[in-house]
Amino acid sequence: MPTVEILSQGDEVVTGQTVDTNAAWLSDRLTALGLTVVRHTAVGDRMGDIQDVVAAARTRVDVVVSTGGLGPTEDDLTTAAVASVYGVEPVFDPVAMAHIEALYARYGRPMPEVNRKQAVLPDGCIRLDNHWGTAPAFAMEDAHCVAFFLPGVPREMRSLFDAHVLPRISERFDLVPGRLVTLRTTGIGESNLQERIGTYQVPGVTLSYRTRLPENHIKLRFDPDVSDTHVVEEATRVAGLIGNSVFCIEGLLPAQHPLASPTGELEEVVVQLLVAGGHTVATAESCTGGRVAAKLTAVPGSSAAFLEAAVTYSNAAKVRLVGVEQSALDAHGAVSEPVAIQMAAGVRERAGTAFGLSTTGIAGPGGGSEDKPVGTVHIALATPDRVHHRKLRLGGNRSRIQSLATAAVLDLLRRHLQGVLPSSP
Amino acid sequence: MPTVEILSQGDEVVTGQTVDTNAAWLSDRLTALGLTVVRHTAVGDRMGDIQDVVAAARTRVDVVVSTGGLGPTEDDLTTAAVASVYGVEPVFDPVAMAHIEALYARYGRPMPEVNRKQAVLPDGCIRLDNHWGTAPAFAMEDAHCVAFFLPGVPREMRSLFDAHVLPRISERFDLVPGRLVTLRTTGIGESNLQERIGTYQVPGVTLSYRTRLPENHIKLRFDPDVSDTHVVEEATRVAGLIGNSVFCIEGLLPAQHPLASPTGELEEVVVQLLVAGGHTVATAESCTGGRVAAKLTAVPGSSAAFLEAAVTYSNAAKVRLVGVEQSALDAHGAVSEPVAIQMAAGVRERAGTAFGLSTTGIAGPGGGSEDKPVGTVHIALATPDRVHHRKLRLGGNRSRIQSLATAAVLDLLRRHLQGVLPSSP
Repeated sequence: MPTVEILSQGDEVVTGQTVDTNAAWLSDRLTALGLTVVRHTAVGDRMGDIQDVVAAARTRVDVVVSTGGLGPTEDDLTTAAVASVYGVEPVFDPVAMAHIEALYARYGRPMPEVNRKQAVLPDGCIRLDNHWGTAPAFAMEDAHCVAFFLPGVPREMRSLFDAHVLPRISERFDLVPGRLVTLRTTGIGESNLQERIGTYQVPGVTLSYRTRLPENHIKLRFDPDVSDTHVVEEATRVAGLIGNSVFCIEGLLPAQHPLASPTGELEEVVVQLLVAGGHTVATAESCTGGRVAAKLTAVPGSSAAFLEAAVTYSNAAKVRLVGVEQSALDAHGAVSEPVAIQMAAGVRERAGTAFGLSTTGIAGPGGGSEDKPVGTVHIALATPDRVHHRKLRLGGNRSRIQSLATAAVLDLLRRHLQGVLPSSP
Repeated sequence: MPTVEILSQGDEVVTGQTVDTNAAWLSDRLTALGLTVVRHTAVGDRMGDIQDVVAAARTRVDVVVSTGGLGPTEDDLTTAAVASVYGVEPVFDPVAMAHIEALYARYGRPMPEVNRKQAVLPDGCIRLDNHWGTAPAFAMEDAHCVAFFLPGVPREMRSLFDAHVLPRISERFDLVPGRLVTLRTTGIGESNLQERIGTYQVPGVTLSYRTRLPENHIKLRFDPDVSDTHVVEEATRVAGLIGNSVFCIEGLLPAQHPLASPTGELEEVVVQLLVAGGHTVATAESCTGGRVAAKLTAVPGSSAAFLEAAVTYSNAAKVRLVGVEQSALDAHGAVSEPVAIQMAAGVRERAGTAFGLSTTGIAGPGGGSEDKPVGTVHIALATPDRVHHRKLRLGGNRSRIQSLATAAVLDLLRRHLQGVLPSSP
């Protein structure tokens, strides 16, 4: 498999002002394409350092992708550095100039003189037309290595990669990318997943884990020669080992597995299932403080399914907004099963929705007791037939507890909609 | 100034499964300490690559900080690679072993045999006791360079850095870190900030911008020899150029500037101001879908100030939960000044709070019209005296619009609490 190095340039990266998300994005894309990324290097805006890393990388690997250092100001040195490493002159390119002028004309602004610098490219390079910004982009190609130089603005970089880099790499190396299937889970830890799946040694398949709290993903990367039938069989087998914590499978066709559609984030899956079934939902939230509603309303088109939420942080609000009985609060406290159940049933009834979701718990750092330590959360789902309740004991800080409780109550609804929630208490 | 290289090890970084936030965190910390970070390098779990980068870095710079590759499994190769680069043997360290055994004992679990590997360290290294996990940490020191090897788990890495790396570096280089003052703003773009501040050339001070949507930060880094008086004067002068968009100033003492306390995220400042004044707040949210409440309740202790929220996504909910008049909805539509005002006043009255906040707008991608394009948002703040209203035209995708609208309404309350909101409409 061809090897790749990724270079990033800019003081903002080496001083820690910017997290280098470009390198991760490019690595993910290139790995999926079937290349092996062996190294990332970031340097600041110093001519000698840029020359060193470009010169070293082009002798080590088949492909170099560099980002940054192509702006109009004096500290943007990449074009000059690349020209010197390749032993060519920087030359003015009238086509690149016309592109920049056209961009300014489109926004009705005069072009500052400083931008002329961006039309200077290393002699003999392949110009990669940038329709997304004024920075130049180009490639240096020889028999051993092709090196791409892209601007560091993520939006421009990504568009240029897809438009120019991807097709050129695919053509140069005749790539047949393998297939990637992702099983998305929530409510189950990575060590627990590893225990269920066990040692994984299946020829032609690589399994990896990825934690994106509150989700855990299992990625199955299939070699290009693995048959479609085997891909489906293996993904189905692994999903079976994990069980109902899998809420969707990305990379299969809808006909190949019941969880292959809908896909996306947990809240996207929930909204799509709700909309498909013509169902509506409302939430009554205490310890999650509006996060369940915020997740649902993050999904475009969610207004067809989500009607309202009551964030009942105070006890008075629990009584007035969703009809919790004062006697339940007095007898059991706000963080209790009866209150969670009354909140879910109450918001469902008042909002006139099919489903009601509720959360009440202690997110910390204060408010915990021996009986109800920080991390104690009660969640409930009211359906037309009954109310489901779960008691959670979550670990971590306030933000983690709020995030996990939000995912847990959304997952309760997801399981009900997918028909995998046990109907008996 | 001493120079630093940062190394990251692990297939998860070079394949793009993980964004390398450790490198940015370390760079930020080291730069603040007065060191110059010149390069980041990440390699996968390959012995030869790890040896190469360690051997090259220790000859180029004064300090190396490496993360990752110290786990118990076979693909964790760093200890062996470092030993070979430094020409020493990996040796079993009984003190490191005792640490690991004690950690397992604390959690009441038997130690897997595989963890014995983590007690093997390069001969002659300085052991850095890890109280936060089982991975070893150590330093290799010679006259030219000190190299620190830390685990890749961010929580462990950060604790080890503060406990061991920071004091050793400070001692070795006799550092006098300069002073950093951060002006946090919201509701103003970077280009607008640059325009107000103009070309910045003040001897002994470096000014930089950092965008962390929905905030923009201005960082003033003062050389160690700048006097305290000049630090305060210059920070005050720059804050004055920017105006009321500055919501707090970090790095000054409370007596030195009125905005020096409270500090933190916008929502932390708002909650601290509310609690200090004994005020309460409730929100009525449409297009922000619970995000304002979620932000406020993210702050520990917010229950003293935040009582409840009504997420009134449907028109029926606007009428029933916060008393919007049906006639206002019919005449002006849900996204309008009168509805925003009625929502803020309504939730304030029903919740019995000092303040009511409201948002109603079109987050997109659907729902826009010529009159009310996507990004049109009305926000309002009801106080005991009157209701303040603002109409926003926000750009970007759904998530950006929801995030900016959330910050805008919190900022309206912040300005009122700091006494910089014009009292006339």
